[in-house]
Amino acid sequence: MKAKIVITPKKAVLDPQGKTVQNALEHMGYTGVTGVHVGKYLEIDLAPGTDAAAARQALNEAAHRFLSNPVIEDYRLEIVD
Amino acid sequence: MKAKIVITPKKAVLDPQGKTVQNALEHMGYTGVTGVHVGKYLEIDLAPGTDAAAARQALNEAAHRFLSNPVIEDYRLEIVD
Repeated sequence: MKAKIVITPKKAVLDPQGKTVQNALEHMGYTGVTGVHVGKYLEIDLAPGTDAAAARQALNEAAHRFLSNPVIEDYRLEIVD
Repeated sequence: MKAKIVITPKKAVLDPQGKTVQNALEHMGYTGVTGVHVGKYLEIDLAPGTDAAAARQALNEAAHRFLSNPVIEDYRLEIVD
């Protein structure tokens, strides 16, 4: 079982890294891009037989407390088999 | 239309950031974690009516050339409506 956490800057927050990637894509000659958001991705391997509900609760707490900065970032947590 | 790129360290590559997150989760009292991989996540907004095949080709090239380091990282590209 795995958990996947995607952490992205909130839409209202300046994303200089995303802007840089967008500029780089334009320099490459690819102009169909209207915006880029750069975030973090965490893949967490869970021991076999882990309780999905307990894992979700613990990881939600972790994501909120120290994996993301809730002031400027959003996160999505997904548990997959 | 959006493209999502997930860049993760290759399994054979040391991932100190992942190890740190794993230790932090254990400190939090959550022990069901067998491994953590930390990577990057890019969300790319594409102009409406963009050709998906052309976008996929350009972004594959970008991911290979400068968004990821193919020596130590893998990437996954996904185009969604």
